[in-house]
Amino acid sequence: MNHKGLIIDGLQYCYWDRDYFIQLKDSGINAVHITLVYHEDSRQTLTQFAKWNDLFQQNADLIMPVDNAQDILNAQSQNKVGVFFGAQNCSPIEDEIGLVEVMRKQGLLIMQLTYNNQSLLATGCYEKNDSGVTRFGEQVIAQMNRVGMIIDMSHSSEKSTLEAIEISNRPICISHANPSFAHPAKRNKSNKVLKALTKKGGLLGFSLYPFLLPNGSQCRIEDFCKMIADTADMVGIEHLGIGSDLCLNQPVEILEWMRNGRWSKTMDYGEGSKNQSGWPEPIPWFSDSHGFKSINSALLDFGFKKEEVDLVLGKNWFNFLSKGLLSSTN
Amino acid sequence: MNHKGLIIDGLQYCYWDRDYFIQLKDSGINAVHITLVYHEDSRQTLTQFAKWNDLFQQNADLIMPVDNAQDILNAQSQNKVGVFFGAQNCSPIEDEIGLVEVMRKQGLLIMQLTYNNQSLLATGCYEKNDSGVTRFGEQVIAQMNRVGMIIDMSHSSEKSTLEAIEISNRPICISHANPSFAHPAKRNKSNKVLKALTKKGGLLGFSLYPFLLPNGSQCRIEDFCKMIADTADMVGIEHLGIGSDLCLNQPVEILEWMRNGRWSKTMDYGEGSKNQSGWPEPIPWFSDSHGFKSINSALLDFGFKKEEVDLVLGKNWFNFLSKGLLSSTN
Repeated sequence: MNHKGLIIDGLQYCYWDRDYFIQLKDSGINAVHITLVYHEDSRQTLTQFAKWNDLFQQNADLIMPVDNAQDILNAQSQNKVGVFFGAQNCSPIEDEIGLVEVMRKQGLLIMQLTYNNQSLLATGCYEKNDSGVTRFGEQVIAQMNRVGMIIDMSHSSEKSTLEAIEISNRPICISHANPSFAHPAKRNKSNKVLKALTKKGGLLGFSLYPFLLPNGSQCRIEDFCKMIADTADMVGIEHLGIGSDLCLNQPVEILEWMRNGRWSKTMDYGEGSKNQSGWPEPIPWFSDSHGFKSINSALLDFGFKKEEVDLVLGKNWFNFLSKGLLSSTN
Repeated sequence: MNHKGLIIDGLQYCYWDRDYFIQLKDSGINAVHITLVYHEDSRQTLTQFAKWNDLFQQNADLIMPVDNAQDILNAQSQNKVGVFFGAQNCSPIEDEIGLVEVMRKQGLLIMQLTYNNQSLLATGCYEKNDSGVTRFGEQVIAQMNRVGMIIDMSHSSEKSTLEAIEISNRPICISHANPSFAHPAKRNKSNKVLKALTKKGGLLGFSLYPFLLPNGSQCRIEDFCKMIADTADMVGIEHLGIGSDLCLNQPVEILEWMRNGRWSKTMDYGEGSKNQSGWPEPIPWFSDSHGFKSINSALLDFGFKKEEVDLVLGKNWFNFLSKGLLSSTN
């Protein structure tokens, strides 16, 4: 199997159209984890799957669906971008345990247990109190383990994340966040979490979302590389990937939907604030998917070996997905 | 491939539990089309899929899911009963064209365009006026053709059925009904329909539901065989199968749900009447799935050749499913 130059982006939520798919393919990305839903319930999630079925049909020369790691290699060999689905919240399963398997069968490969707020499963990173994984949460983790749906704790709080790592009998991921030591955002992760995550085989995808980076939109690419190097020193480079968090070509209403869903009557600003309520200024060296090329060069310049760069840009994600997406009965 | 003695029942809606699966396997049936839903909407249909995922897990020694014809042979070779899903109404797709593909992916292999009443797609067999296939109906037929979901017109009216046969670019089925010439129930089908159906490669599954048989529950097995023989003379034996319509171990509330769904404030009695409102008396020689053995013997006694009996009891369904379940892009 040829993994040469495999590039995988562990999180994007752009405005999906043909123009964007052309750009995505041109960037050299072989596969991308796309956010299917933020707060949509089961029924609404079906509509999103239907929307993507149309996109796959209309853009079959550019993109193809990914249901397992082999599909990523197939996409690479066919010179297409493989697309795999994740939910940023557990809303697609509502309060029904059986929907984990139903959604996995439909193609939902990754699901966050929480998105910022308390969910039925665990606590989000913006809550005051972190009550950990709930009774329902334990049941859902067991089902996700069984059917090969990957647990993602990117927007979860500390205790909940540690408990999910502990309860899950399979490695989990934090698909898009950064270490708190690099920048102390609530969304970023403590050393304790990163060590626990990786000790059990988990993966961290570094985010390019300015709010999660040191110096925000002014973050230098060298600082980004240093963050990776320091994390690699702490937990091992084989656990690190990229989850760019790219949200391109989306109106501010989408940002408001992400932050407020249906849960608030007063505007919530998420990582932003009242004075900085819109999309953050993009990082100059990562304004779109082509930024992967900049990161590639910068990591080499920083002193990473080529094999190490390949791991971070795609192979680690590939290896993680290879194990995580198979049902436990396979 | 060994199709020897392949037995396929083209329609059952029993109370599904382990005891019943034991009985089903013991009967020698290799695969059965089960009714997943009658009037359930998209969200409720997901719950039915989830319920069946549990049944498959808990009874993995007896039953297995079927997504294509090859799975039926796999079930046969593993000595299990293959189960494939159908909807008796188009309620799982609601008013959304994209849900055809979503439901097919989830495992809905067969869908009726109507159940007795007018639907968004076509007209049911109990309506006064038959307006034929609707605009939405034409779109849905095209999608069903594309993704390999089989069109079933068992509970549809004459004009709608003829139009569906005409519009569809793939053979369709009437999974469970009988010729009107044998018994003039509204649910049964005219010679015109049967000829049009089979001329385009479609399949008729003979029903054992007493209301659809000559002399009802007193129908003799010889009369059932004669009905098959007469139909074979008219349209060719290669288009004929069994769709037993077995509804065992179900309370009368289920019958009322089938007949009334959520659409009526006054009790509708379907094929029955106020004085005969419950389940009909079962036919003595077909009180459960073991009745397939009686039919086998009776058809041989009637003068059918062994190869012909094999066609009617399973091979015709197998051949029909082999072609009907592949997506048109395969």
